[in-house]
Amino acid sequence: MTTSPSRDNGSRDHKSRDSTFRNHTARNNAFLADFRSMSTIGATAGGGVDRQAGTAADGQTRFWFRGLMEGHGFVIRYDEVGNQFALLELAPGAPYVAIGSHLDSQPMGGRFDGAYGVLAGAHAAIELMEQAAAAEGEPMFNIAVVNWFNEEGCRFKPSMMGSSVFTGKIPAEQALATSDPHGVTVREALNAIGTRGDFRLDVAAYVEIHIEQGRSLEDAGLSIGLVESTWGANKYEFVVHGEQGHTGATVIKDRKDALLGASALVVAAREIANRFSTDEHMVITSCGEFTVFPNSPVVVASRVDLLVDVRSTDPDVLAAADAELHRRAAEIEAFADVRIERGAEHAWDAKTYDQAGMKLAAASADKLGLGYGIVRTLAGHDSTNLKDMVPTIMLFVPSVEGISHNERELTSDADMLAGLAMLTEVAGRMVNGELVQK
Amino acid sequence: MTTSPSRDNGSRDHKSRDSTFRNHTARNNAFLADFRSMSTIGATAGGGVDRQAGTAADGQTRFWFRGLMEGHGFVIRYDEVGNQFALLELAPGAPYVAIGSHLDSQPMGGRFDGAYGVLAGAHAAIELMEQAAAAEGEPMFNIAVVNWFNEEGCRFKPSMMGSSVFTGKIPAEQALATSDPHGVTVREALNAIGTRGDFRLDVAAYVEIHIEQGRSLEDAGLSIGLVESTWGANKYEFVVHGEQGHTGATVIKDRKDALLGASALVVAAREIANRFSTDEHMVITSCGEFTVFPNSPVVVASRVDLLVDVRSTDPDVLAAADAELHRRAAEIEAFADVRIERGAEHAWDAKTYDQAGMKLAAASADKLGLGYGIVRTLAGHDSTNLKDMVPTIMLFVPSVEGISHNERELTSDADMLAGLAMLTEVAGRMVNGELVQK
Repeated sequence: MTTSPSRDNGSRDHKSRDSTFRNHTARNNAFLADFRSMSTIGATAGGGVDRQAGTAADGQTRFWFRGLMEGHGFVIRYDEVGNQFALLELAPGAPYVAIGSHLDSQPMGGRFDGAYGVLAGAHAAIELMEQAAAAEGEPMFNIAVVNWFNEEGCRFKPSMMGSSVFTGKIPAEQALATSDPHGVTVREALNAIGTRGDFRLDVAAYVEIHIEQGRSLEDAGLSIGLVESTWGANKYEFVVHGEQGHTGATVIKDRKDALLGASALVVAAREIANRFSTDEHMVITSCGEFTVFPNSPVVVASRVDLLVDVRSTDPDVLAAADAELHRRAAEIEAFADVRIERGAEHAWDAKTYDQAGMKLAAASADKLGLGYGIVRTLAGHDSTNLKDMVPTIMLFVPSVEGISHNERELTSDADMLAGLAMLTEVAGRMVNGELVQK
Repeated sequence: MTTSPSRDNGSRDHKSRDSTFRNHTARNNAFLADFRSMSTIGATAGGGVDRQAGTAADGQTRFWFRGLMEGHGFVIRYDEVGNQFALLELAPGAPYVAIGSHLDSQPMGGRFDGAYGVLAGAHAAIELMEQAAAAEGEPMFNIAVVNWFNEEGCRFKPSMMGSSVFTGKIPAEQALATSDPHGVTVREALNAIGTRGDFRLDVAAYVEIHIEQGRSLEDAGLSIGLVESTWGANKYEFVVHGEQGHTGATVIKDRKDALLGASALVVAAREIANRFSTDEHMVITSCGEFTVFPNSPVVVASRVDLLVDVRSTDPDVLAAADAELHRRAAEIEAFADVRIERGAEHAWDAKTYDQAGMKLAAASADKLGLGYGIVRTLAGHDSTNLKDMVPTIMLFVPSVEGISHNERELTSDADMLAGLAMLTEVAGRMVNGELVQK
């Protein structure tokens, strides 16, 4: 599974990468050792991790990260919703270039999603610290490695919670009052793991590296993705209201079956994806959470809570697919004799990343001899929030077979190290004022 | 909600019933008081009860029932799977006429389902005890009031577990080893509430009274249903296997969405009920339990466990509907790119109750001046098992609007008392040898 980069001469042309990497064996070995160590926290039997936001395992990962960074002379700070900042002062009084991602995971998630980006950020920052110590002159910005709280949104909704609060999209109080299914609030969970504070980062620019969670880079044989834009997405919390009854004795015409209504909505969502996707504009619909009450074998369900999301690269196609979803929901209300309530909604438009950042990243990849492609991200990332606040660069490394949110999620050591080199180069240029000036 | 029977002169002709009941005011008042007391155990805010099998609340109800019966001189015994027997010896050495139902409930269930039948059995037995003491000669049989363990099957599957073991349809060891979703076995749950034993009842005949859980009696303005037969039913445990993925980043063609497959199966089941139901033969399909893994908002489901059942009055129609369900399941495997596994199956044929018992019950209703009708039961009952072992009579009382497995389940006091009078008359004739002889 772990091949040393100098021996990884697989299907791609790695000649120029090998020459780049040859001088960095010690740093690369340290990175891989740290990645293996970090992956033991919350490890699952199937090779993944379970470190949902605010759990004991998330807390352990945060303290492990704190130890790593403090050991290298960084200062750890937290903000009020538990975003974790490892600070390195290179230019006293200047704002920070932030390098980040998230250490929380899905239940039975992969060990690369988020965690790779934070650790790559840590090692990039350590490298830049050593370069700064050896160089003359002063960098323009300080460096913060950031672990955003609750990117996954599985225990506490919505996803990208920490970066949403940081960028002012969600009030801190609302995030802190959010409950998990057992009634534990974010405030209680964060206090329990002791990682809240009142720090506020003065951020000038942001860069994030993440696994692709799709297969376009792998299919094209590329090492790096430069993320051009996010897809537009509409996310709905639906509640289907039926009436509890006996599955045996209640005749069909008397049934108000919430499970039937919710199931029909799941099927309709897929049919909409199939119908609205064209060669030019893909539509993706999903339902990832579906909870039935009372969920007894002989009871007609009285209620189903489900999340449905609709995503597209094209705003007009998204709007059309969305309208169709709501038309179908009205039909299903009649079909299953249920009431479908639209609860909370979250939407983000298809938006582009900073063009100057794209150019800086392309120049960096060219310098390192890394093959790169322009990609869009279907998944949300913390950078989706940050890019609306400061100039932001989002980088991808390949995911084997595009498998993600799965214990079998995999990015090769060679790809992780290529990404680390890329991130170090990009962040170095940002710290030296190539993307934004003070 | 609770009207005294002498004042309940509603839409039906209660004249003859009133004259019957006038002499039984004390017994009726005692029954209603006991019913109110029993309904406080595991009471829910919505007026129902939550007394799932083997829980603390089920144990409390069992001890309450033990206290009631021991207070009247009955002896309490348990068998190895927790069936609870309140024994009254009237004819030493003779077999028993059993009168029973169940005290366990659905989560957020109604307070009448099962519990009414056990308490009516208790008061009928107490009345027969007093009649026997006052009369000359000896009854032919002894009396056992039975609380069958786990009729509902919501915590431990399958339903009708206690009576299935009693009638030899399920091995005791299999029942005892059955786990609830938290891994607690029936053996552990029964030991925890201390209601297991090694008693074996020598049963000669069985009678059960239960709420209809349908609306045919109410619609026809009748007080009593004589159950002629059960519907045939096939119950399946399906497991839909998909593959965990990211709801945002996994493109549609790469998805193996277990939730989509399971939802399509729920919709197909309803379509089959609609298609195969005719004026002559109704088909009812249901899915009452549906559990999604890992059930996270941004994860394509890897697995859904669901129960589907198909019921019909006609064996040929049932077989045709069943074949269609499996044909549709194969189609859905292709549609959603999932694998659908058929797990455990339970089936029972449409079967008739004892004809002599139907006649005895009709004569009893005529004597009491109670309007009755012949009905079929869609729901399974403990009598479904007992009728395959000994001559069995199954009686229904009306359910308001047919609502059941719901906190709003309701049977009026007048209907409960009419049922009690009916059960006392029927059980008295059985004890005196009118249905079976020693």
